[in-house]
Amino acid sequence: MKNYTSISDIDDLESMIGEARSLKTKNTSSKVGEGKTLGMLFFNPSLRTRLSTEKAAKLLGMEVMVMNASKDGWALEFEDGAVMNSDKAEHIKEAAAVLSQYCDVIAVRAFPGLKDREKDESELVLNSFKKYATVPVLNLESATGHPLQALTDAITIQEFNQAKKPKIVLSWAPHPKALPQSVANSFAEMMQRFDVDFVITNPEGYDLDPKIRKDVKVEYNQEKAFENADFIYVKNWSSYEDYGQVKEIERNWTVDKSKLQHTNNARVMHCLPVRRNVVIADDVLDSENSIVIQQANNRTYAAQAVLKRILECAK
Amino acid sequence: MKNYTSISDIDDLESMIGEARSLKTKNTSSKVGEGKTLGMLFFNPSLRTRLSTEKAAKLLGMEVMVMNASKDGWALEFEDGAVMNSDKAEHIKEAAAVLSQYCDVIAVRAFPGLKDREKDESELVLNSFKKYATVPVLNLESATGHPLQALTDAITIQEFNQAKKPKIVLSWAPHPKALPQSVANSFAEMMQRFDVDFVITNPEGYDLDPKIRKDVKVEYNQEKAFENADFIYVKNWSSYEDYGQVKEIERNWTVDKSKLQHTNNARVMHCLPVRRNVVIADDVLDSENSIVIQQANNRTYAAQAVLKRILECAK
Amino acid sequence: MKNYTSISDIDDLESMIGEARSLKTKNTSSKVGEGKTLGMLFFNPSLRTRLSTEKAAKLLGMEVMVMNASKDGWALEFEDGAVMNSDKAEHIKEAAAVLSQYCDVIAVRAFPGLKDREKDESELVLNSFKKYATVPVLNLESATGHPLQALTDAITIQEFNQAKKPKIVLSWAPHPKALPQSVANSFAEMMQRFDVDFVITNPEGYDLDPKIRKDVKVEYNQEKAFENADFIYVKNWSSYEDYGQVKEIERNWTVDKSKLQHTNNARVMHCLPVRRNVVIADDVLDSENSIVIQQANNRTYAAQAVLKRILECAK
Repeated sequence: MKNYTSISDIDDLESMIGEARSLKTKNTSSKVGEGKTLGMLFFNPSLRTRLSTEKAAKLLGMEVMVMNASKDGWALEFEDGAVMNSDKAEHIKEAAAVLSQYCDVIAVRAFPGLKDREKDESELVLNSFKKYATVPVLNLESATGHPLQALTDAITIQEFNQAKKPKIVLSWAPHPKALPQSVANSFAEMMQRFDVDFVITNPEGYDLDPKIRKDVKVEYNQEKAFENADFIYVKNWSSYEDYGQVKEIERNWTVDKSKLQHTNNARVMHCLPVRRNVVIADDVLDSENSIVIQQANNRTYAAQAVLKRILECAK
Repeated sequence: MKNYTSISDIDDLESMIGEARSLKTKNTSSKVGEGKTLGMLFFNPSLRTRLSTEKAAKLLGMEVMVMNASKDGWALEFEDGAVMNSDKAEHIKEAAAVLSQYCDVIAVRAFPGLKDREKDESELVLNSFKKYATVPVLNLESATGHPLQALTDAITIQEFNQAKKPKIVLSWAPHPKALPQSVANSFAEMMQRFDVDFVITNPEGYDLDPKIRKDVKVEYNQEKAFENADFIYVKNWSSYEDYGQVKEIERNWTVDKSKLQHTNNARVMHCLPVRRNVVIADDVLDSENSIVIQQANNRTYAAQAVLKRILECAK
Repeated sequence: MKNYTSISDIDDLESMIGEARSLKTKNTSSKVGEGKTLGMLFFNPSLRTRLSTEKAAKLLGMEVMVMNASKDGWALEFEDGAVMNSDKAEHIKEAAAVLSQYCDVIAVRAFPGLKDREKDESELVLNSFKKYATVPVLNLESATGHPLQALTDAITIQEFNQAKKPKIVLSWAPHPKALPQSVANSFAEMMQRFDVDFVITNPEGYDLDPKIRKDVKVEYNQEKAFENADFIYVKNWSSYEDYGQVKEIERNWTVDKSKLQHTNNARVMHCLPVRRNVVIADDVLDSENSIVIQQANNRTYAAQAVLKRILECAK
């Protein structure tokens, strides 16, 4: 694996998950990262992703250097041929080339603007780093995807699954702010790679990108979607059709205990941070059904498996 | 020692001080922290505490991850049952549980608001981490206490003391801003655990919390308090009675050389940063009487002894 | 070498460059820095300098602690005898003395204000650290110099030079903001230590400090200056005469391919970040003539050689 910018970069998903689970239990110190440096570049804030990836890198023996692009006022120019006489101090060509000399892997977080769909879908920041960096690039959540989260989710489902062909529901939930579709996108792509009964439920007007959703069933009735579910993955996202908008909805989509009634005692997942009693109710998060904490723990091992694979491939 | 959130967490004070002093001289590399991670979470800025604790952790072989909660805009919800539809993105329940998975010790700094005494005394942030974290919690200065500083102070006094039963004076001093009582509180508690002649001197209206002060003598005449003192610990704090207020005072409380006249050539201490010629005058800070720099150095060894004890206990 | 605050701190320039080049190729892990801590203190933002110096320190086995003085609101008082009752919380005397206990080397970045020439030339921040710190001080770019960059530049020229006595031109170039003279100053000083044909070209009104320039030829005609050049070092700086001003200039000073015509197929250098098509045109930066990326890479080895020398001397 040269880069990990989308889940399609993983050929052998089963062995990747196996590696992550083995790293988790064995706590092996393979030290494949010794003498190597991970540069983490944040165009948007991060807590969980930063900590878990930093921890993963250090478990492999890597040094970690963190750069907060926005806070350090390091505005990058991405346009070819630009006359740089305003606020952008450095072009991506130099930035990526120089970072490639100081770092052995460059990890980048760059959220969508949620104003211009085409621009967000071009993944300008991530793809520019892929184009101009001479070392592997790791996606720490980009405009349209969050592949480290999706790998974490696959690991977690495999750990908790007891059904032969589990029913897995991705459920939209309310949120006061307009959020990216990244987590939902990567989760939907990931589920399509397994032999599971995968259903998406969201209010009308909130259908995910058809290029990603493909022929996954969308059920607009949340309660119906939940019937016999083994796993419910809860997440808010803003509208894809009315791009980036938060639309008025009629019913209550918050996931509470009563909604789990007709599930198969479903495990409830969320990528965190989660707004209690808006996205998921206390009576679910504080119950045995919630596996959100165990899921967060797997972020470390997903990142560790990915970094290990990248370093082994770069040798 | 499971946590270190108050000096009452130390049972065997003498052996703790001995350990710190031994770590200081031997520069032993016990590496009890190898493979362990310290997460330092700052709700308020820090320089000395961050650097000395980071250094202490690394001397023990630990990895350190720093999170600036305020700057990263990571507003936490502490209220049970809150409907999180405004600015708080994560509940302490998830935050503490997740950090407990990425870190082996969680260190927290959270100052008081100095508006609502009852709220500050509830130590909401620190106690919530103690409640919801599943790993040890270290206090990097909370609303009402600074136990790492107090341990540092005890080490420093023991290093410099030559009297059988030294006279130690905690003296209030002026400051342009309203400051917490934390440092003074923990120092006062610490001194009560030793066989010393301990006196507090402050202007009327500046008495510390009676629950902490207990039956320690308060002398409102600073010069009288200083008579025959072996150690003078200078520190500003805002009023406890008129909670958080900076009150008009009549006399000059700045500690200068002339005030040391009737002391026993007293050593002068301060936790730093110190405002020269407001809190302590140049003629003291630049003299042999001042041991503030040596005191600051002991921050590292106090933190190292505490972290070592916590890690050994957690094994 | 006790400190590295100016290139005059290097006695044996050739052996220093040799050491840096040897560290680069051998990737030796001498670990002279094991158990040592580098404290990097930024009064101004930094990306390249921070990353390369951090990497250099870690390659030597050092721990690194980064402090952002401005962002952490840590305003220092530098004046002797000041009554510190306003916004400055700590005096340089304490700050430097305490940092000297937590760190084995203190690295400082402090830009000029570009308002008051005399004040900038006094190098108050850097010199105060030199005065009050008890450990070596490393200049990460100060008001008037950038000696780590100049050492990098000397290494790079030696790597690429094929002439017996190369012609090296330092060329001013346009920039929308008023920039320090630090990089140009240190480069001009460095070139005067080699047996090279060194010329400075800049618009009238942009002559560098005569104390630094000494008898180096200044050619106001850029094209004439470029004739037969082997290396062209491009850099903007604000006026020294009309201190800190950006003056109207008549001709176009941007370095593009057509200007390289009469050079000896010159190598083009810049310290980065570079504003494309303002300072240097795309057709140069994207050509074989540009060695700016290789030059940036040498930042690591310049810093590594300097830190190694400082640590060996401090033993």
